[in-house]
Amino acid sequence: MRIPLDISNEIPLYRQIENWFRTNIQSGSLPAETKLPSTRELANELGVSRITVKNAYTNLESDGVVYTREGSGTYVSPPIPDLGVRPPIQPATWPLWQMEVEDDYAIEPAPPYLSPSDTIAFIGVGDPREFPLKEFARTVREVFDHDGIEALEYGGLHAGYPPLRETIAHILASQGIAARPGEVLVTGGSQQALALVCQALLKPGDTVLVEKPTYNFALELFRSLKLKITGIPVDSQGMQVEYLEPVLQKQHPRLIYTIPVFQNPSGMCMSISRRRQLLELAARYNVPILEDDFVSDLRYEGRSLPAIKSLDPGGQVIYTGTFSKMLMPGLRIGYLLADGPIFDRLLRLKWVQDLATSNLMQHVLDTYVTVGRYQSHVRRSTRLYRKRRDAMQMAIRRYLPAGVTYAVPHGGLFLWLRLPEGMTCTELLPKAMHQGVEFSPGTRYFPDPDEGLPFIRLNFATHTPEEIDEGIRRLGKAMRDA
Amino acid sequence: MRIPLDISNEIPLYRQIENWFRTNIQSGSLPAETKLPSTRELANELGVSRITVKNAYTNLESDGVVYTREGSGTYVSPPIPDLGVRPPIQPATWPLWQMEVEDDYAIEPAPPYLSPSDTIAFIGVGDPREFPLKEFARTVREVFDHDGIEALEYGGLHAGYPPLRETIAHILASQGIAARPGEVLVTGGSQQALALVCQALLKPGDTVLVEKPTYNFALELFRSLKLKITGIPVDSQGMQVEYLEPVLQKQHPRLIYTIPVFQNPSGMCMSISRRRQLLELAARYNVPILEDDFVSDLRYEGRSLPAIKSLDPGGQVIYTGTFSKMLMPGLRIGYLLADGPIFDRLLRLKWVQDLATSNLMQHVLDTYVTVGRYQSHVRRSTRLYRKRRDAMQMAIRRYLPAGVTYAVPHGGLFLWLRLPEGMTCTELLPKAMHQGVEFSPGTRYFPDPDEGLPFIRLNFATHTPEEIDEGIRRLGKAMRDA
Ligand SMILES: Cc1ncc(COP(=O)(O)O)c(C=O)c1O
Ligand SMILES: Cc1ncc(COP(=O)(O)O)c(C=O)c1O
Repeated sequence: MRIPLDISNEIPLYRQIENWFRTNIQSGSLPAETKLPSTRELANELGVSRITVKNAYTNLESDGVVYTREGSGTYVSPPIPDLGVRPPIQPATWPLWQMEVEDDYAIEPAPPYLSPSDTIAFIGVGDPREFPLKEFARTVREVFDHDGIEALEYGGLHAGYPPLRETIAHILASQGIAARPGEVLVTGGSQQALALVCQALLKPGDTVLVEKPTYNFALELFRSLKLKITGIPVDSQGMQVEYLEPVLQKQHPRLIYTIPVFQNPSGMCMSISRRRQLLELAARYNVPILEDDFVSDLRYEGRSLPAIKSLDPGGQVIYTGTFSKMLMPGLRIGYLLADGPIFDRLLRLKWVQDLATSNLMQHVLDTYVTVGRYQSHVRRSTRLYRKRRDAMQMAIRRYLPAGVTYAVPHGGLFLWLRLPEGMTCTELLPKAMHQGVEFSPGTRYFPDPDEGLPFIRLNFATHTPEEIDEGIRRLGKAMRDA
Repeated sequence: MRIPLDISNEIPLYRQIENWFRTNIQSGSLPAETKLPSTRELANELGVSRITVKNAYTNLESDGVVYTREGSGTYVSPPIPDLGVRPPIQPATWPLWQMEVEDDYAIEPAPPYLSPSDTIAFIGVGDPREFPLKEFARTVREVFDHDGIEALEYGGLHAGYPPLRETIAHILASQGIAARPGEVLVTGGSQQALALVCQALLKPGDTVLVEKPTYNFALELFRSLKLKITGIPVDSQGMQVEYLEPVLQKQHPRLIYTIPVFQNPSGMCMSISRRRQLLELAARYNVPILEDDFVSDLRYEGRSLPAIKSLDPGGQVIYTGTFSKMLMPGLRIGYLLADGPIFDRLLRLKWVQDLATSNLMQHVLDTYVTVGRYQSHVRRSTRLYRKRRDAMQMAIRRYLPAGVTYAVPHGGLFLWLRLPEGMTCTELLPKAMHQGVEFSPGTRYFPDPDEGLPFIRLNFATHTPEEIDEGIRRLGKAMRDA
């Protein structure tokens, strides 16, 4: 091969070799299946080191331009067909069944409009800058060293990696919830737990009772399953259980969905007497309760109340938790706790839905999370986020008009603000974005979105006190514009 | 603190300190919130190094026995309530709704019975011993170094990590399937892709057409969704499309599910003329096709045929693929390819099902998989598994009775054997397990399990030629027993 090399050129020699091959393979001068000289031969011929030739070949191979046959040499790859850029199909040519695809429920704009990078966005979950990245990376290495390929297999058809199920039971015990590892089902985030429970228990047209406001992606899930959604209003003591009985009598709901602690979005907690009352009513009217505990560890003051699940004499409550908020959402690991026949039903549904949650992620999480490490992480986050909540309150007093009202949450991630009389979140949002601050509009959190017009949800956990101060200042400006 | 230390004891000093604290915290002598001396104080007092005391404190903290308040010191943790071992709930006390939980479809025993460790199990997917573990571990490190916390966040509400969607489109192009990255939806394995498609298109009571035999967990999925399943028999050219039209006319199926290449379990490929015919019929009768391409890269001989998706003028075929077989199932990453209104519907369903597939795993996979690396991995696996297929054929000729028949698959993972006249897989399995060899019984792969009685599925990819020889020898013995 006569490859012209120019040592005075600033392009490194291996690149020159690589480029020569690319050009000649692309032009067809070196057709598919042509054998390349060995690195030793070519190095001798060109008077360069073998490493130089190897570097060139490695780059060509990693792009698929050439390939190696073990013990035989390096060859030009068959060409990757240039399929060109295919134009999107025109609606006129879609098959008929596609025109009938039902998608008659609303969802947040997809993908969410991009915020300019200097926007202070009071959305999201915890502060990713606080993720214990280094420790976590170390744990991943440990898992590769100790568990090896085992962690990369399916991991068997079961309810999750058995040691992780035990760890979860321990963490729950440290929060006062007695759980046998056999009751724990590992899921792809708690979102999947919600989806599994709905699919196991409800059919289109069935009614689900929710708090009003409630978690937006639970609402979207219920809508996508064509459930009827009835909202029970929340006050500073959580779901107003007093209103429940007539609804139970009239609507025969098939599920009660509740977020009893630091509720998303209101931040409120359900009182102990309401928990007892809820459980009693659910038992009397034979309705399962789905208790979504997404963030109860993050308590800034006051005493924690027993989970509804821990008051349950047996089988009435399905409980779900997640590692997304306390650790990292990118893991996609949550879990549910159930007993009785429903556990088997949920397990089988999990199998047919996605066979299993990533075995690797389960091994890593289990190695990473000891009870002590989890608790010390909780303590660190609690200290940090409490300060941020307080900073946001200060900033609100300082910058927002007096018409803004809210109740102080004793934990969690969110402040839920009622706007001054006559102002709506949909009208405020573009003005806020214009000022460089973003919030989550209240309309997302109500079965009937219009009821959410007077509200906005602010996440105080993702930003430093300084950023919070500046963000709320901008929000104040936007409110004056509105 | 008077901690008696014994330097002559073989228990290290830090353990002795640790044990002393454990005992005294457990006994209550050191109640919750007691402040521990600083490491410096205690080291001085005991005449040991600070490291020794630190080691003890770290161990205590990682078990949650003590905790650190930043800038203030180390304290005894509040006790973890001893919740004891809770007995399982008695059926008599389950709430009524639990008694009504429907679970009226069969599924493989859960958890699958454990094979003794010296059993040669011809089940599973590829050979985990061939996973590129080291390279993969290195990639994970790279992702932590380069992408950092970004990889641990939710990753935004979209159809997958955008660079991975592009990589998938490139890999598909190298297989002759034109795909725009915008048509790629990343899923939790291809199993989730199957589940999403069914949920988007079918409701209980609808009919789905499948090959007979077909992939067992597709059947389980369809059963769990209460679909009617109609099987079209497979011959050496794949699904016998000739039988399709009357079924389309009479049963009005809402989906055709096919595995056209190295079908699971039969190993057969659908001929090109049948692909064209299938597509035409599907278009004429307005039925979507779900093309499950789980392993088409693993071809040992012959030329590959165009995917049905690539013959599709537009929107009729939803295509799904996976990294489980070619790389590692523990990733739980698959994808689907769809265009038209159905894409948005599937995307929204994916969101409500589990928000997103693990962002970390997507970053890692995208960093790991270049087209060249993927192809060279395919080539390695192909060489390896071809030898194993041939070894299994040799062993079958040598050890199994003449009544056993099968067609040689040109790729994939499975040999599909018809047993000698009169023998059934259910009768053979316990005898085989007794001899130390396991297979997958044919009953799992038919809509009507009884039709599968004369068949067994053998995975030839997971074992070395020597293991295969021994395994088939044992199977021969079991057959003689039967
Ligand atoms: C109340 C609530 N439940 C469940 C989830 C789902 O989270 P994940 O699926 O990450 O566990 C969220 C996420 O924001 C939430 O706010
Ligand atoms: C034909 C077929 N499709 C889909 C799957 C699902 O695999 P995964 O979810 O790991 O991609 C399998 C797994 O064995 C299979 O055999």
